Amino acid sequence: MRIEKVAIVGLGLLGGSIGLAVKERAPGTTTTGFDTDADVRAKAAERGLVGTVCSSIGEAVSDADLVILCVPMGAMEEAARAMASSLPLNAIVSDVGSSKSGLEKTLSSALPGRHIIPAHPVAGTEQSGPEAGFASLFTNRWCILTPPENADSRAVDALSEFWKDLGARIEIMDAEHHDLVLAVTSHIPHLIAFTIVGTASDLEDVTQSEVIKYSAGGFRDFTRIAASDPVMWRDVFLSNKSAVLEMLGRFTEDLTALQRAIRSGDGETLHDLFSRTRAIRKQVIEQGQDDDRPDFGREDHV
Amino acid sequence: MRIEKVAIVGLGLLGGSIGLAVKERAPGTTTTGFDTDADVRAKAAERGLVGTVCSSIGEAVSDADLVILCVPMGAMEEAARAMASSLPLNAIVSDVGSSKSGLEKTLSSALPGRHIIPAHPVAGTEQSGPEAGFASLFTNRWCILTPPENADSRAVDALSEFWKDLGARIEIMDAEHHDLVLAVTSHIPHLIAFTIVGTASDLEDVTQSEVIKYSAGGFRDFTRIAASDPVMWRDVFLSNKSAVLEMLGRFTEDLTALQRAIRSGDGETLHDLFSRTRAIRKQVIEQGQDDDRPDFGREDHV
Repeated sequence: MRIEKVAIVGLGLLGGSIGLAVKERAPGTTTTGFDTDADVRAKAAERGLVGTVCSSIGEAVSDADLVILCVPMGAMEEAARAMASSLPLNAIVSDVGSSKSGLEKTLSSALPGRHIIPAHPVAGTEQSGPEAGFASLFTNRWCILTPPENADSRAVDALSEFWKDLGARIEIMDAEHHDLVLAVTSHIPHLIAFTIVGTASDLEDVTQSEVIKYSAGGFRDFTRIAASDPVMWRDVFLSNKSAVLEMLGRFTEDLTALQRAIRSGDGETLHDLFSRTRAIRKQVIEQGQDDDRPDFGREDHV
Repeated sequence: MRIEKVAIVGLGLLGGSIGLAVKERAPGTTTTGFDTDADVRAKAAERGLVGTVCSSIGEAVSDADLVILCVPMGAMEEAARAMASSLPLNAIVSDVGSSKSGLEKTLSSALPGRHIIPAHPVAGTEQSGPEAGFASLFTNRWCILTPPENADSRAVDALSEFWKDLGARIEIMDAEHHDLVLAVTSHIPHLIAFTIVGTASDLEDVTQSEVIKYSAGGFRDFTRIAASDPVMWRDVFLSNKSAVLEMLGRFTEDLTALQRAIRSGDGETLHDLFSRTRAIRKQVIEQGQDDDRPDFGREDHV
């Protein structure tokens, strides 16, 4: 099973980055692309995100070895149904969605008997749309595949090779575990960032202008994450409800314990936690998962 | 009142950055410095953080027009008492502490009758110690002064000019309001970052190695803030207890409302909030309070 023709459905940050990465790193592979938004299609053509921008999903997938759905979780089913009649029999269908448990069922019900290998490249920025993508988005990032039990191992291998060509590292896990891991490493961080930015902008005794002026004290970091695509993130929380609520419960318990420590003046509990968390940062850096320069190497001082 | 001789007490990230900024931007001003830690003094001398590293606090302040306390909140009183007998009568005493309400009382009780003008430059990185400072730390950042009601306006003006020379912009407000504003723009963001990093590293069903591998989904941003100096932050929470608990209460209410929206599948509430928070980011960028490149301009992909 060789992947020589890739169809990208949804030409935003992720879809566009895949197209650009293929062009740069897998030049033997051809790409087609489709987006339901005509403006997005026009911009995708202008930037050359894919080899051919098609005017229908059927046209985009009709000759594909691999179709990658790069649409919000809530739009996956509709996209899968729309391409069903045009999809070649042996094509692999994959995606880049942030939650995985329900997805295989959704896709296999829309596309019965096909090679469905859900995937999640853990990569992105706060920007979205056809102008946001770039070829190096996946370099040194992990791409998690969650193949169903009965998946064809040749399809899993071919999809793994495809992502490796784009610079990613591969991990395979079951969909439920994926959703728990991502709830804590991605979904809860986003949820609390959205929350604190909302809280700060609703205060009466502190003005919004003050919040922005003094955001360099830490708040500005949260505004970046809270600038992420609203539709995508609405769908993440709705599609990974149980793992998100589970992890949110644990976070809230820990926050309540710290609240109690502050109220009672228990400096030792605070100091112990803050020393432990510092060590985690060191490991993130050592494992190449973040820029090691202070303040992420921001240049806004200069 | 002219500031020509500045004594810096505490030669970590903030103290060291002040020394380096003076050297670069106010070359007519001389600096002395002291730190209770002999290793820090040695490193400060090696890096030339101040003109003269002194072996006692008394020696450092004995000829100063301005003394800036750059020590954790919990060490302010001891530092003020230790320098009391050596401090010139007309010297201005200021600081860089993150909470302000209790400080003026603490300092004026240790240094009765002196010019005490508390200040807080809203600037920093996750690093600490004598090797972490750099001259441009305060460029384009706000420095908030919280002079007591009876403060000598010439002292306030002189301190304002000093910080402007270092590249900062000046705001004056009362100490209680400062503490509320900083609780939301700095202290709560740090508290929730410390919490989620702690929560993530304590899970049994998700390993610490998984948390680190997949941290690019959002979590890694929080690890940076949660790598901040443990002693400094312990003291921030203990010294700004009431404003922190007040703002934490509001954050928790908002988080509970979002939890309910997720549980009930209320996508509209989620989408509305996520659209509003995206607009805040835009203002942070427009007002020069953050790097406008995607992902803060991180270069770890390349």
